[in-house]
Amino acid sequence: MPVLVMKFGGTSVATLDRIKRAAKRVGVEVAKGYDVIVIVSAMSGKTNELVGWVNETSPMFDAREYDAVVSSGENVTAGLMALTLQEMSVPARSWQGWQVPVQTTSAHAAARIEGIPSDNIMASFAAGMRVAVVAGFQGVSPEGRITTLGRGGSDTTAVAFAAAFEAERCDIYTDVDGVYTTDPRVSPKARKLDKISFEEMLELASLGAKVLQTRSVELAMRYKVKLRVLSSFEEQSDEAGTLVCDEEEIMESNVVAGVAFSRDEAKMTLVSVADRPGIAALIFTGLSDAGVNVDMIVQNISEEGRTDMTFSCPTDQVKRADAAMAQAKTDGTINFAELIADVDVAKVSVVGIGMRSHTGVAAKMFQVLSAEGINIKVITTSEIKISVLIDRKYMELAVQALHDAFELDKAA
Amino acid sequence: MPVLVMKFGGTSVATLDRIKRAAKRVGVEVAKGYDVIVIVSAMSGKTNELVGWVNETSPMFDAREYDAVVSSGENVTAGLMALTLQEMSVPARSWQGWQVPVQTTSAHAAARIEGIPSDNIMASFAAGMRVAVVAGFQGVSPEGRITTLGRGGSDTTAVAFAAAFEAERCDIYTDVDGVYTTDPRVSPKARKLDKISFEEMLELASLGAKVLQTRSVELAMRYKVKLRVLSSFEEQSDEAGTLVCDEEEIMESNVVAGVAFSRDEAKMTLVSVADRPGIAALIFTGLSDAGVNVDMIVQNISEEGRTDMTFSCPTDQVKRADAAMAQAKTDGTINFAELIADVDVAKVSVVGIGMRSHTGVAAKMFQVLSAEGINIKVITTSEIKISVLIDRKYMELAVQALHDAFELDKAA
Repeated sequence: MPVLVMKFGGTSVATLDRIKRAAKRVGVEVAKGYDVIVIVSAMSGKTNELVGWVNETSPMFDAREYDAVVSSGENVTAGLMALTLQEMSVPARSWQGWQVPVQTTSAHAAARIEGIPSDNIMASFAAGMRVAVVAGFQGVSPEGRITTLGRGGSDTTAVAFAAAFEAERCDIYTDVDGVYTTDPRVSPKARKLDKISFEEMLELASLGAKVLQTRSVELAMRYKVKLRVLSSFEEQSDEAGTLVCDEEEIMESNVVAGVAFSRDEAKMTLVSVADRPGIAALIFTGLSDAGVNVDMIVQNISEEGRTDMTFSCPTDQVKRADAAMAQAKTDGTINFAELIADVDVAKVSVVGIGMRSHTGVAAKMFQVLSAEGINIKVITTSEIKISVLIDRKYMELAVQALHDAFELDKAA
Repeated sequence: MPVLVMKFGGTSVATLDRIKRAAKRVGVEVAKGYDVIVIVSAMSGKTNELVGWVNETSPMFDAREYDAVVSSGENVTAGLMALTLQEMSVPARSWQGWQVPVQTTSAHAAARIEGIPSDNIMASFAAGMRVAVVAGFQGVSPEGRITTLGRGGSDTTAVAFAAAFEAERCDIYTDVDGVYTTDPRVSPKARKLDKISFEEMLELASLGAKVLQTRSVELAMRYKVKLRVLSSFEEQSDEAGTLVCDEEEIMESNVVAGVAFSRDEAKMTLVSVADRPGIAALIFTGLSDAGVNVDMIVQNISEEGRTDMTFSCPTDQVKRADAAMAQAKTDGTINFAELIADVDVAKVSVVGIGMRSHTGVAAKMFQVLSAEGINIKVITTSEIKISVLIDRKYMELAVQALHDAFELDKAA
């Protein structure tokens, strides 16, 4: 029988009632003829409680013990889900990471999945079991210790199982009903996408769409796992949610798939930097060492041996960046006139694989912003994304205007 | 280095502060030169919460899933205890049942320990680890599923480890500071015993002393594991608590070790039973099938083919016993006149291995009760115990009078 992977996050299994609702969804797929692998998170709040205890006990904790403690939340949900399915007369059993086994590296609290032998679970399916409920987020190291994959790891577990079992699809049940062209709270015309490519999803996720963990999308792209994001709180049809899939499977699509934004940006300019080979490496290594997550980087034309270097970072890292650069100036490692911080900016991006074949997307974006009287402060582009920094007060206006101009409220 | 087993129950690890206090006790033993195996229960209340969820999800639950869920409580405590010890610079790591492995039968929720290979933990001691924190109450079946030993199983885990590792002693930390000659709430003269034999402990435990799980005492007796019961809430010396040990190790002891009692007894009399071979088997099989835990049994002399059969059981099982006997009468399987229930009785017992060599204990007991004007309703005896049923209102008086008469307030 074909295998389907279904993943339920913490809010979808937060109570016994919600576990029951999730189990009913699983029952529907079993009735269609699928052997189902269900990946569960801990009941919401449980992991935070356990992490809190570990931190209180030992601020510089041994990650191996952290993993032993924190993984228990998923084990509880897995057992309860198996029992709930059994109550519905669906043959099911729970699997903890070490029982499958989910083989991982020994990088505790941030382990990487190395392999998932399918024999044990396939043997249980062959023996009449219809559902394997697997505790997400965990595995076992070569030394036989319990590992966890880090936060959001349950999405990754789900995609890894879908790859290992060559599942027909990996359904990620969450508290939103899919991926939208933009945030409906900013643009009421936002439309749910039926399909989106892995590449677009990656650009949207890293820009703050936060529906799927980036790592799981990367894994799905590598192994060509069809991912579907949908709500566990609504009645579902086969076409519900958003399918994240390979570009080739999307016959028709808009040139632009969505408009992403990030409110929480600061624009930093190092004025009159003494330009010499390796100066960019020096600056950004220094910022990285100071824990500053630099996003956009723009360098102006060098004149008389000096240049301006502009970058963006989250607003709460401005002080850190300031301190790091001031230190570098004192040390004499970086010579510059001043560091100007503009903390009232926002980033707006248009994303779409259609840009590869359609020209003029950037020009159109700039025209739209210009027509609204919005000044562009920084521009960066990638193959399928154009991002600009603008004054934060214009952010909503920009998102709405771009959403309208690229006709995102209409399906392709 | 010699191995010591220390077990901490649910109330002793109920909070992070209490885990810290327990860890300090472990540290003291490590400083003395012991390699320590710590057995932990779940934080008190946790197991009940998990059991509650399982029961709500599935009243006729699959015990394999029950075990998978319920065992998670001990895993959390084991990890937190290991972290706490590490914070105190004591090299420690946690072990879940399957990691040791604690090999058990497949009788889920009531598994029996079959073997505990010592190689893994001994190797960790050899490598410089000083404490192995083991999640109590759990193991792994031959099929690789998680098992639990049933309620109170952590005591059994502790004794089994002490036997497998030939530990010098097995210290059971609990919320009382030892075994008393009787309940101090009933007799203020109650005295803590320094030593008690396994046999006496078994009789006291099954009579409601509730300090140690009966099963763990039986196991300790079989493998001659020295057991010590002591409080985790007091500063401890090497002589603290009560040592439960082989009879031969107790040089001097009182004839009577303690006075036990049970408030919750009912005396049931089947009047004028048609006496024939196999009638007792019929009656008590019927009661057992109805879930009645029969304690004492007395049969009067048979006259003219009929006899009276008296037994005791917990008061809350009287209705069940009534119904079972009424049914048997209707069926015609048991012929009797009536069933008289006396629910206002209590059981009082004196226990002591000294009875084997000293005569007159029973006579003295009956004289004491008689002198207080207390009527004895039923008597049963074993090699080291004499029990009587009396009116419940005289229970405290009887316990105090017997405690005085056998001079239990004075050490041997």
